[in-house]
Amino acid sequence: MANYVFGVDVGGTTVKLGLFDQSGTVIDKWEIPTRTENGGEKILPDISVAIKAKMAEKSITKEDVAGVGVGVPGPVDGNGIVHRAVNLGWAEIDLKKELTALLDGMRVEGGNDANVAALGEMWKGGGQGHKNLVAVTLGTGVGGGIIVNGEIMTGATGAGGEIGHIHVEDHETEACGCGNYGCLEEYASATGITRLANRALKASDKDSVLRKGEVSAKTVFDAVKAGDELAIEIAKQFGDYLGKGLGVIASIVNPEIFVIGGGVSKAGEVLFEYIKPSFEKTTFHGSRNAIFALATLGNDAGIYGAARMVL
Amino acid sequence: MANYVFGVDVGGTTVKLGLFDQSGTVIDKWEIPTRTENGGEKILPDISVAIKAKMAEKSITKEDVAGVGVGVPGPVDGNGIVHRAVNLGWAEIDLKKELTALLDGMRVEGGNDANVAALGEMWKGGGQGHKNLVAVTLGTGVGGGIIVNGEIMTGATGAGGEIGHIHVEDHETEACGCGNYGCLEEYASATGITRLANRALKASDKDSVLRKGEVSAKTVFDAVKAGDELAIEIAKQFGDYLGKGLGVIASIVNPEIFVIGGGVSKAGEVLFEYIKPSFEKTTFHGSRNAIFALATLGNDAGIYGAARMVL
Repeated sequence: MANYVFGVDVGGTTVKLGLFDQSGTVIDKWEIPTRTENGGEKILPDISVAIKAKMAEKSITKEDVAGVGVGVPGPVDGNGIVHRAVNLGWAEIDLKKELTALLDGMRVEGGNDANVAALGEMWKGGGQGHKNLVAVTLGTGVGGGIIVNGEIMTGATGAGGEIGHIHVEDHETEACGCGNYGCLEEYASATGITRLANRALKASDKDSVLRKGEVSAKTVFDAVKAGDELAIEIAKQFGDYLGKGLGVIASIVNPEIFVIGGGVSKAGEVLFEYIKPSFEKTTFHGSRNAIFALATLGNDAGIYGAARMVL
Repeated sequence: MANYVFGVDVGGTTVKLGLFDQSGTVIDKWEIPTRTENGGEKILPDISVAIKAKMAEKSITKEDVAGVGVGVPGPVDGNGIVHRAVNLGWAEIDLKKELTALLDGMRVEGGNDANVAALGEMWKGGGQGHKNLVAVTLGTGVGGGIIVNGEIMTGATGAGGEIGHIHVEDHETEACGCGNYGCLEEYASATGITRLANRALKASDKDSVLRKGEVSAKTVFDAVKAGDELAIEIAKQFGDYLGKGLGVIASIVNPEIFVIGGGVSKAGEVLFEYIKPSFEKTTFHGSRNAIFALATLGNDAGIYGAARMVL
C-alpha cells in the first residue's frame, strides 16, 4: 500500500524536502543545498539520493510511496517539462522523466513553485475548504498561483498565474525586472514598497519615523501601525495598486478566496484594510465577494503543495 | 445509441436552437422568440416544446439524444444554477434540474452564453486545435470566455471570464453599465469606440470623414482603412486599451490564442495591428507568444458551444 508521498521544493540555494502520509501529516522534513554549478546537473541526482536515503532510514519501500511532487522556480508545462529555471541554471529539462528514471520508476509530478505553494495553501493552509483560490506571494517579487476547481491553472506554456507582472500603471518610468513598465511587482513586493516609500519621502516634507532609520516593507507597516501619516500614505498607494491588480484577477478568474503570503504578509490583516477599498471599487460585482485570508504555511507551502500534486 | 445533441443559446429576444450529430455537424437550426414576461417563466417550457417537436419531426427518440446544452446571458455556476439573468427576467433558477424535468429526464448542461460561445469557437471556430483559449466578444458590450485545458473556467459563482469589466483606466469620469469606472468595455465595445470617437472629434480640430456622417465602430474602422488620421488616432486609443486588457489576461491565464468576435470584429485583422503594440508592451514575456485570430462562427458560436458542453 502506498502510504507515503514526498514533497520537494527546489529553491535557488536550498532544496526543501518533506515526507508526508496520505492525509497530509508531515512525518519528516529536511533540506539539502542546491548545487547550481554546471547547469544545475547535480540537482535531480541530489534529490534522488536524499529521497532514497530517507526511504532506507524509515524502512520505506518503493511500493509504499505514491509518488514525488516537485516545485521548481520556473515555468513547468502540463507534461512536467521545465522551460528554463534561471536560478537553478536549468535550460529545458524533462523533470518528470529524468527524476522518475533516477528514482527507479517512481511516479513524479512537477509544477511551478508559486503554483505549487498555492495548492499547498489550499490543502493545508489559509485556503482550506476552497477549490477556487488565488495565492499571492508578496516577497522580494510578487508571485502567484491560481487554483481552478482544485487544479493548478498551468496555462499553455506553464506561465499561468504570473500575477506579479500584470500591468497596473501606465506612467511608470523605471523598468520591472521582467523588462516591462508598470508591473504589479513594482509596487506590491517588499522591494516595491521600499521604492514607493523612498519616492514618498523625497516628494514630501512631512515628518515621519521612516526618516530616522531603515526603510523597508516591515518598517513601513510598523510605522502604519504606530499611526505615522506618511507611512499611511505609502500603504494607501501600495493598497491601491494591489487592490486594483487583485480586482482584475477576480473579474477574470472569479475566485472564492485570495490567500496572501510572503514576507510582506507578516504585517498581518492590516494589509487588507489598504487593499479592499480599491479592490471593491474596481472588481466586477459578480466577483466582489471574494474573501481575503493570510497564508499560514510560510516556507512549507511548497513541500505541502508538491506532495498534494501526487495525491 | 445517442447520436444527437441539442445546442440552445438563450438570448433576450430569441432563443437559437441547433440539432447536431456527435461529430459537430449541424443537422438543423432554428429560432423561437424569448418570452420574458412573468419572470421569464415560459422560456424553459418553450425550449422543451421546441426540442420535443424537432425530435418528433425527425423521428428521434430520447435514447438517440446525448443531451441538451444551454447557454444563458447570466452567471451559471458549476451545478447548472443560474444566478440571475436580467435580460430573461430570471432570478435564481436551477436550469439543469428544471429543464431535465421538462424533457422527461434528458441530460441538460448549462453555462454562461459568453463562456459557451468560447467553447464553440474552440470546437468548430477560430480556435480549433487549441485547448487554452480566451474568446473576446466586442459587441454592444465586451464579453469573454476563458477555456483552460479544454474546459470552461466557470469561476466560484459563474462570473469567470468577465473580461469586459477588468479595470484599465484610473481616470474615467463616466460610469460603466456595471457601475464601476474605467472598465475595458467602456473603450473596446462598439459603444465604447463610438464614445472614444465622439470625445476625439470634440477634442480635436482635425478634419475627418467622421465629421460628415454617422459615428460608429464600423464607420471608424472604415475611415481607418481609408487612411483618415483622426480615425487612426481613435483606433490607437481603442487598441491601447484592449491590448493592455488582453495583456493582463495573458499574464494571468497564459492562453495559446485569443479569438476575437462580435460586431466590432467585422473590421477584420486590421484590429490586431492596433491591439498588438500595447499587448506586447504589457504582457509578461512567458505569455507574449499568444496568437490572435478572428472568430468564425458568428451568432452560431453559442449553439455550437452549448452542444459541445454535452459531449
